[in-house]
Amino acid sequence: MHRLDLKIRLHCGADIAIGPGKADLLEAIQQTGSISAAARSLGMSYRRAWLLVETMNRCFTSPLVTTLAGGRHGGGAQLSELGVQVLQRYRELCDQALAAVQDGLDDLGALLANPTPVPR
Amino acid sequence: MHRLDLKIRLHCGADIAIGPGKADLLEAIQQTGSISAAARSLGMSYRRAWLLVETMNRCFTSPLVTTLAGGRHGGGAQLSELGVQVLQRYRELCDQALAAVQDGLDDLGALLANPTPVPR
Repeated sequence: MHRLDLKIRLHCGADIAIGPGKADLLEAIQQTGSISAAARSLGMSYRRAWLLVETMNRCFTSPLVTTLAGGRHGGGAQLSELGVQVLQRYRELCDQALAAVQDGLDDLGALLANPTPVPR
Repeated sequence: MHRLDLKIRLHCGADIAIGPGKADLLEAIQQTGSISAAARSLGMSYRRAWLLVETMNRCFTSPLVTTLAGGRHGGGAQLSELGVQVLQRYRELCDQALAAVQDGLDDLGALLANPTPVPR
């Protein structure tokens, strides 16, 4: 009947170091081994994916995504050890936050009227 | 150095029943006793505030905001008992979620590079 949406964003100065979109991108790079394939799988332009990667790489103590020999488009990309770690910790944070609010959410959800179905 | 942004939205069918913006609006109505004054204090148009109130009122089992005699603009508005309760529970949910991720956040924050200062 009801659905909770919980979003965590970690800001670093003027930038968002990690948030839902960047975490999804890291995961897609991990799965596809390429920034362009990851961007495609998320319906995102290559340019946008590259900018998100650049921001993440700048925000942390060392790059989260490393590109392999062959140039930006050619050689593929992978998560660094730190990238794997940041992705995992971020997902854990979100899971912990969700678990913490589950009881309160049920209380609040009980106060909702019957929703009109989501049009699809 | 780093800052966490945690947003909780409770969806009800196609609508957002309560989220950060609607909670701020409830609080402003509680403080000002009027939808138009609340809208002004948040830099929001009266029309937008009214639409948000309408959505909230529709999403819950009974209205969160009641308008007083004198018409929409004239008579003021206040939170119903349910409105007070929903606002309080929502703020508690957000606080609980934030408290739950504090340790993990410190771990993740320790992996951030020194941020460039936020321009203001």
